[in-house]
Amino acid sequence: MLDTSQFDLQAYLKERMEYVNQALEGYFPAAGAYIGNLGEVMRYSLFPGGKRFRPILTLACAAALGADPKCALPIACAFEVVHCFSLVHDDLPCMDNDDLRRGKPTTHKAYGEDTALLAGDALVIEAFNLAAQNVIADHPEITIQLVRELALASGHLGMVGGQILDMEAQHHGATRESLLAVHRGKTGALIRGAARAGAIAAQATPQQLEAITEYAELVGLVFQITDDILDCAQDPDPISFPSLFGLEESKEIARQKTERALNLIEPLGEKALPLAALAQYLLVRSV
Amino acid sequence: MLDTSQFDLQAYLKERMEYVNQALEGYFPAAGAYIGNLGEVMRYSLFPGGKRFRPILTLACAAALGADPKCALPIACAFEVVHCFSLVHDDLPCMDNDDLRRGKPTTHKAYGEDTALLAGDALVIEAFNLAAQNVIADHPEITIQLVRELALASGHLGMVGGQILDMEAQHHGATRESLLAVHRGKTGALIRGAARAGAIAAQATPQQLEAITEYAELVGLVFQITDDILDCAQDPDPISFPSLFGLEESKEIARQKTERALNLIEPLGEKALPLAALAQYLLVRSV
Repeated sequence: MLDTSQFDLQAYLKERMEYVNQALEGYFPAAGAYIGNLGEVMRYSLFPGGKRFRPILTLACAAALGADPKCALPIACAFEVVHCFSLVHDDLPCMDNDDLRRGKPTTHKAYGEDTALLAGDALVIEAFNLAAQNVIADHPEITIQLVRELALASGHLGMVGGQILDMEAQHHGATRESLLAVHRGKTGALIRGAARAGAIAAQATPQQLEAITEYAELVGLVFQITDDILDCAQDPDPISFPSLFGLEESKEIARQKTERALNLIEPLGEKALPLAALAQYLLVRSV
Repeated sequence: MLDTSQFDLQAYLKERMEYVNQALEGYFPAAGAYIGNLGEVMRYSLFPGGKRFRPILTLACAAALGADPKCALPIACAFEVVHCFSLVHDDLPCMDNDDLRRGKPTTHKAYGEDTALLAGDALVIEAFNLAAQNVIADHPEITIQLVRELALASGHLGMVGGQILDMEAQHHGATRESLLAVHRGKTGALIRGAARAGAIAAQATPQQLEAITEYAELVGLVFQITDDILDCAQDPDPISFPSLFGLEESKEIARQKTERALNLIEPLGEKALPLAALAQYLLVRSV
């Protein structure tokens, strides 16, 4: 196991979050050229933002394989922009009908449903423009791979597919299997894709890409389980890992998955310390 | 001027439409792997479809520059998929609130608002997956250019931007300038991008790309003007070219733009006959 005892994860996350935010500011500048109020509304949906977990994961995976994280910055931000787009559409009245998001009015509460719908559309489209920024010199085929990875992770076989499954589960009731399938799409696919994108940008070997993929599937699941456990303390009713697997079994699954994730990245050595510390943190925050 | 008197445009359009439909069937097969009912809903929004004007334009531009249209087929279909996505979201209650589209219930009427929203999202994302199909051997940088062209044409500086301007014009009243700006985004950008994509896939010279771009801007405008004239015969009230420019001036603008478009493609010779015939048809259908 990698020894993360000397690694300051919180300082790392803070620094990386600022790095991502700065890049997003550059891609969506306040004084940029926008039509109507679209720039304002897109920025409202992007900033101040949350933990920026997905892009940080992309950058950490690229760095773990020895690449300059800069080569993964556009695709890292593209994954974050897709995440933000999904929140805008998720919050709409025909979906979750939420009034607040991260302590401020949701985009449609602030700007109206029609504008929020279109700003979401504009965000997901711009994410693909970012993904297609050709930052890896002399390797345009890698950029194409990144675009396809983003589409696969976010589209009908990934995140959007998971949202459809979630709606069906809410209507027809959930089983352990359906809960896992919803997670795999709705949250898992984007986390998996974000990690893979970092590895692809770093020109990973097939074996490295496989290890990073499995690592991301595992920590994505742990992320969901521990999120559910934390939420469950507030409100034990919704369909969740604790409600379908029980609290103790959920914690045990999270522990086992984390151990496996740590084993997978051990061969990468010191460069993978952030990935190791991240996996451990996702576990201990609730268990 | 190219002599189109022997060219059977209707037969050409029918054959190309079937070619595009077949390709779309291949990309979204009825028996494909889909999650939940997403495949059914995406197909409902894609088929039977309309005239497939945008992808036919892409293919015709590629052919006019001497390329095998096959090299432009994925990006042609990607533009059509973006068009269909925009119709699904446009029809939603928070936008135009339409119950019927091409004689059948709109997607949200048939499947519910939440599902229609997500199916639209899945379609636009899949369009980028199609755009990133690497069909031009040994030229991955062209595929990247196509992805960026699709994003630019459909995003906040293109189609979505035009939709936002259209909403603003409906609230604040329209001028000739705002009408032109709405058209340039809402309909023009996708037509322009579709044509440019065909030229880019055909490895156009800068001069050829410029000519195709201007041709597409002109025929896109004529398309809108003659559409407005035809609609105006049914309902003279909405903001349109006839209502802001008058019927005769609208027709005169359409005539002049068509002439300029025809001049632009003349140097391409016989291979550009479909483009010439298309431009003439868009004009005469109403004037």
